[in-house]
Amino acid sequence: MSTYYEKIEIVGISDKSYEDAIQNAVNEAKNRFSELRWFEVVEFRGGINDNGSVQYQVVLKIAAKKEG
Amino acid sequence: MSTYYEKIEIVGISDKSYEDAIQNAVNEAKNRFSELRWFEVVEFRGGINDNGSVQYQVVLKIAAKKEG
Amino acid sequence: MSTYYEKIEIVGISDKSYEDAIQNAVNEAKNRFSELRWFEVVEFRGGINDNGSVQYQVVLKIAAKKEG
Amino acid sequence: MSTYYEKIEIVGISDKSYEDAIQNAVNEAKNRFSELRWFEVVEFRGGINDNGSVQYQVVLKIAAKKEG
Amino acid sequence: MSTYYEKIEIVGISDKSYEDAIQNAVNEAKNRFSELRWFEVVEFRGGINDNGSVQYQVVLKIAAKKEG
Amino acid sequence: MSTYYEKIEIVGISDKSYEDAIQNAVNEAKNRFSELRWFEVVEFRGGINDNGSVQYQVVLKIAAKKEG
Amino acid sequence: MSTYYEKIEIVGISDKSYEDAIQNAVNEAKNRFSELRWFEVVEFRGGINDNGSVQYQVVLKIAAKKEG
Amino acid sequence: MSTYYEKIEIVGISDKSYEDAIQNAVNEAKNRFSELRWFEVVEFRGGINDNGSVQYQVVLKIAAKKEG
Amino acid sequence: MSTYYEKIEIVGISDKSYEDAIQNAVNEAKNRFSELRWFEVVEFRGGINDNGSVQYQVVLKIAAKKEG
Amino acid sequence: MSTYYEKIEIVGISDKSYEDAIQNAVNEAKNRFSELRWFEVVEFRGGINDNGSVQYQVVLKIAAKKEG
Amino acid sequence: MSTYYEKIEIVGISDKSYEDAIQNAVNEAKNRFSELRWFEVVEFRGGINDNGSVQYQVVLKIAAKKEG
Amino acid sequence: MSTYYEKIEIVGISDKSYEDAIQNAVNEAKNRFSELRWFEVVEFRGGINDNGSVQYQVVLKIAAKKEG
Repeated sequence: MSTYYEKIEIVGISDKSYEDAIQNAVNEAKNRFSELRWFEVVEFRGGINDNGSVQYQVVLKIAAKKEG
Repeated sequence: MSTYYEKIEIVGISDKSYEDAIQNAVNEAKNRFSELRWFEVVEFRGGINDNGSVQYQVVLKIAAKKEG
Repeated sequence: MSTYYEKIEIVGISDKSYEDAIQNAVNEAKNRFSELRWFEVVEFRGGINDNGSVQYQVVLKIAAKKEG
Repeated sequence: MSTYYEKIEIVGISDKSYEDAIQNAVNEAKNRFSELRWFEVVEFRGGINDNGSVQYQVVLKIAAKKEG
Repeated sequence: MSTYYEKIEIVGISDKSYEDAIQNAVNEAKNRFSELRWFEVVEFRGGINDNGSVQYQVVLKIAAKKEG
Repeated sequence: MSTYYEKIEIVGISDKSYEDAIQNAVNEAKNRFSELRWFEVVEFRGGINDNGSVQYQVVLKIAAKKEG
Repeated sequence: MSTYYEKIEIVGISDKSYEDAIQNAVNEAKNRFSELRWFEVVEFRGGINDNGSVQYQVVLKIAAKKEG
Repeated sequence: MSTYYEKIEIVGISDKSYEDAIQNAVNEAKNRFSELRWFEVVEFRGGINDNGSVQYQVVLKIAAKKEG
Repeated sequence: MSTYYEKIEIVGISDKSYEDAIQNAVNEAKNRFSELRWFEVVEFRGGINDNGSVQYQVVLKIAAKKEG
Repeated sequence: MSTYYEKIEIVGISDKSYEDAIQNAVNEAKNRFSELRWFEVVEFRGGINDNGSVQYQVVLKIAAKKEG
Repeated sequence: MSTYYEKIEIVGISDKSYEDAIQNAVNEAKNRFSELRWFEVVEFRGGINDNGSVQYQVVLKIAAKKEG
Repeated sequence: MSTYYEKIEIVGISDKSYEDAIQNAVNEAKNRFSELRWFEVVEFRGGINDNGSVQYQVVLKIAAKKEG
């Protein structure tokens, strides 16, 4: 039995900041996968509303530990 | 509750064209994941048959919307 | 006076194929810039409709010749 | 007549945060281009003042919709 | 019905070698996914223990065949 | 005696489509190298004629099996 | 005698934000290297605590001016 | 009002050297854009004449300062 | 007369290790090209047999010295 | 006082394997830097001797913990 | 019969400049391949002699036209 | 005792050419590190003066041999 992780690629969104978008994505992922350990940010993007305000979008790879 | 997507990486194949390989992959993914929204092509490859005809292979990342 | 090009990054869209999306983008760019010479495809993406049909999206860099 | 976007590469700057640098860049771009729709962050950089405080610099590609 | 693959990104670990880390990861993945066909190594990393010995860590993308 | 492949980088051209450019390149390569097995697309480019029509250009790496 | 810079790659950490992680890294680097001038962010990562809170980790290249 | 730059991608050409191709491109860009500040070289290419002499081609991103 | 190298891209395969796959590829290349000097590993991949055992596949660029 | 790491880029060499080249590099680095924690492999290369035997060369980034 | 190119990867060397290294490489390639048309620079490197003088090394991909 | 190199990332500057910027950087590095052996160019950039003249800036990784 060996240590083993799977990585899931997810997208988080926030009107406030990239940190908030990351925390939102981690919160949602926590409901669906257990034992999340670390993440890497793959992409920073965003939407622009008609009034010029910005929606922050972040693509993460999250590593989840699995029982061997 | 926030908007949240997961990305799945898949491979589609066709003897006709890359567009057909993409549509095949999307069709298969639709049977397994719901609420597919967009995709990015990660890689274009192919096999070559003995008579020189080509099999088109395409690697996609597909984003599926998840209920928060 | 020397030969000199500018590159413009554009996005073309089609329901039929990437080639059609490229031709659409080149046609629109032709109305806005003169003396287009070559292009490189930077990204292949797409949207997925509710019925599973695909919208092809392509990002191009187009080089336009400028008078020195 | 088809949907068509142009991408503009710009640099935004702020003493507060990357989100503020992005919003500054979008605000300036809004004065110069119309119908901004989305952006991708290409590069995160910064300057360091003599007292060690940081100036946040961000390079964006912004997509603007054009009439066909 | 067409041929179709999904790719899963996983992390394998070994104190002996990268080949052992890959085999460990494939063994674990085999318990969770069926019909594994090929893999690509995405990243070679490692941990360093206090005595200077090395733990080999490898990130793989594994392709699994799915029934259409 | 072990299995061994060489990869050749080639450019194919077509006025019709990228698939046609790939098939053209494979046909030419078949006259010059034997036992072609698979290819990867390295680059999608194109030329633009004065009337706005497009010439599709594709750069491939083709793998050919060699006798050990 | 000419202007000359060395670049140092460092990792900064914060429980608050990436901007705070950058400022922490710059503060530590200032104690060890003189005349820091600019930085580039090489990687955005993070750790995930058992309760789902996030630790922000950032990898920077910092340029320091050296006397020729 | 904040500091703001736009980046323009251009191609310069010279029969002498890459430095000459860069200077040619900057000179042409200066006639078309004001307040050029810095550039990054994106690509070094070249053409080969029938007698084997080389034409140097360079792709630059030039940053121009804009009034906020 | 100047020093000059050509680079050949090849694929080596082994059931034992990547080092063995590299040595196999170099041995085969030695029969076909003379004066091999150095190599870079471009890609680490592998096949997975039905019983879960792994076939190691490695893509190399090998530099061969040529008489000027 | 915050946690802080510096990354050092080094090259290790071995006639036996990449794992041996990594362990050699870590051993040498341990004599020069304290508190090494993890590494990433940046590049796998090698030399080829006249008899076709291979020298394995590996480029690592090693992270060392520093007192804040 | 269609237009078709092969790309050859080569290394050129000079004690004077990168342009001289490129011209050297093109001259040698001209003796071995016919109808060279264009090149891309893949890598700029160099050796450092004991007295600190530099040897310029450049890796090129050269495209040669082939009869269909 | 094994052969071992460290790589240092530095920036060189010149008003004349990239080759001169490289030689300047190597000369400065020679005063600070011993046994420099080879370098790779990581980035070509430049500044633009008000009169349009160019300052060449080059980022190098230099490898220095260390006693084991």
